Amino acid sequence: MNETATLWWDAESTSIHYIEQTLLPNEYSIIKCRGIEKLATAIRRLEIRGAPALGVAGAYGVALAAVLADGKDLKSFMEAVNRDSDILRSTRPTAINLAWGIDRVLAAMKPEQTPADAVTRAIVTAEEIAREDTACCHAIGRHGAALLPDSCTVLTHCNAGALACSSWGTALGVIRSAVNAGKQVKVISCETRPLLQGARLTAWELARDGIDVTTITDSTAAHLMRKGAIDAVVVGADRITRDAIFNKIGTYMHAVCAHHHKIPFYVAAPRSTFDPKNSEQDVIIEERGRDEVTIMGSRTYVPEGAHVKNYAFDATPMELVTAVITETGVLRPPIDIHKLLSHQSTT
Amino acid sequence: MNETATLWWDAESTSIHYIEQTLLPNEYSIIKCRGIEKLATAIRRLEIRGAPALGVAGAYGVALAAVLADGKDLKSFMEAVNRDSDILRSTRPTAINLAWGIDRVLAAMKPEQTPADAVTRAIVTAEEIAREDTACCHAIGRHGAALLPDSCTVLTHCNAGALACSSWGTALGVIRSAVNAGKQVKVISCETRPLLQGARLTAWELARDGIDVTTITDSTAAHLMRKGAIDAVVVGADRITRDAIFNKIGTYMHAVCAHHHKIPFYVAAPRSTFDPKNSEQDVIIEERGRDEVTIMGSRTYVPEGAHVKNYAFDATPMELVTAVITETGVLRPPIDIHKLLSHQSTT
Repeated sequence: MNETATLWWDAESTSIHYIEQTLLPNEYSIIKCRGIEKLATAIRRLEIRGAPALGVAGAYGVALAAVLADGKDLKSFMEAVNRDSDILRSTRPTAINLAWGIDRVLAAMKPEQTPADAVTRAIVTAEEIAREDTACCHAIGRHGAALLPDSCTVLTHCNAGALACSSWGTALGVIRSAVNAGKQVKVISCETRPLLQGARLTAWELARDGIDVTTITDSTAAHLMRKGAIDAVVVGADRITRDAIFNKIGTYMHAVCAHHHKIPFYVAAPRSTFDPKNSEQDVIIEERGRDEVTIMGSRTYVPEGAHVKNYAFDATPMELVTAVITETGVLRPPIDIHKLLSHQSTT
Repeated sequence: MNETATLWWDAESTSIHYIEQTLLPNEYSIIKCRGIEKLATAIRRLEIRGAPALGVAGAYGVALAAVLADGKDLKSFMEAVNRDSDILRSTRPTAINLAWGIDRVLAAMKPEQTPADAVTRAIVTAEEIAREDTACCHAIGRHGAALLPDSCTVLTHCNAGALACSSWGTALGVIRSAVNAGKQVKVISCETRPLLQGARLTAWELARDGIDVTTITDSTAAHLMRKGAIDAVVVGADRITRDAIFNKIGTYMHAVCAHHHKIPFYVAAPRSTFDPKNSEQDVIIEERGRDEVTIMGSRTYVPEGAHVKNYAFDATPMELVTAVITETGVLRPPIDIHKLLSHQSTT
């Protein structure tokens, strides 16, 4: 086990282990998961979240499905695995990495002739995806760190950190790599309503690493930009279509305000996040329950007579993006479908 | 007592009565206040808040100070009243109306020759200010309603409603007057972190009046603007200098995003909010405590190792404002100091 890993496969117990993120920063708890429904619930409840981590969770999920499937004959075995994969795939509609991780393990299993070989292949492939994800974050970090000034304050939204990946992080990977390279980086972490991943997770993992981090309410960002207190914005992404970045609700607001203040707006994401076949209009933006917005602790903050809209993500058009930082390098505008496709095809 | 009043003077008990706003929407509680320190604490704790309501609270506060002051001789009487007025004045540095209400009552008391006459004058003047505030909101409402389309969705931030005034409201006064005039108005109420006045107060008072209201997290506003779901933004103001609107933190973000989407951005405020002698740089933006951001209910959401910045207000430059809606009419750009001053001088 890697100490800073977010989720991993435990070979001994053939189960997934993960940090339960809804309990942070108050409680650090490792959950052992050996059931598909349990894993699906953990993903739906955001106990595991973050685009790259969902890719790894999807991959481990198929491995777990393979371990649990009845192995009498290959056909019924694969039927069971596919059924479980569909359950996992449906948990979060917007993040593309989840489906990407699931499909990659399923594809790797296909040539195998026996259930036993398919199980082995599934586990090996899932482990490979997790290792690749960590390597990928370090490469993103290296490429991104070069874009930051030697001394700067970076604003980030939500958590595109170690907790959103296998480890290291995408947006926070850029910050970690810059700090490792000797740059003086301060971080403004937007709390990220409604579920406060910026306050709970980003502030927690940066403070733990000794990186200077300040939490603000989301709507304070524009005020700090106007005061000249922000040198760059770096965020992650849940899906990148040919025309837009899908990321946590609030990302678009930061992009508009960064544009208004001529502050660079960077998106750090592995190429597994790319979805060049689709455009913005093809993507469903997940709407989540009323209670996430209205209830905190035991108290209800919105009266019953009021409606609530709770979009989990928004779309930022490519025109507002200064650069997309990937594991193979930095894509600068015009960031068009051909560039995305040619990069994608080299995967 | 006016049923929808937010705070009022009770002649029988010579005390201030007010709705305790921190308990809404779960508890509707009227507090009787007959102490200057108690009133100062109520203002600091935001049990009474909102720029016009603070003007009325300041006025009633001086009346209360006069009632409580030792009335032996005029000089020591006025010393006591002034001392108490200074306590009240220092509670909130950004909202100008508080000082405006205090100073207006003090000025009215000046010509009086006996403590008893000064007490009477203070109460009469404070009552006058409260009545004027209600009339003012209705006038703002009438002028503002004319600006809204017959069928529209209006986004507002924080609470510039009845609860922020004597009654009716400024931004919400515009919405109420439009609804009264037969327009179909839907309201998007931004929850307004950290203290959720949009969720707790605006949604509560609009739902109570049967006006269609939807609560969103603050950072969802830009996403809705991009989807074409917002026809206008209407907010209140805590202070209007010759170059900027000071209002609840988050207002500036909405102004930038409205500008980007070519959506009209209106500020509804009585002329008592105007501060034409000062410019943005002269105004202190109140910073409030860490706990407002980090703690909700019994849970702490930000780890100890992280800093927190909690600005109560931000400044929106006049260039981003489509119009300022006042009780005497609508000011359109260029909204310059001369216009403000000439309007101010007719008060």
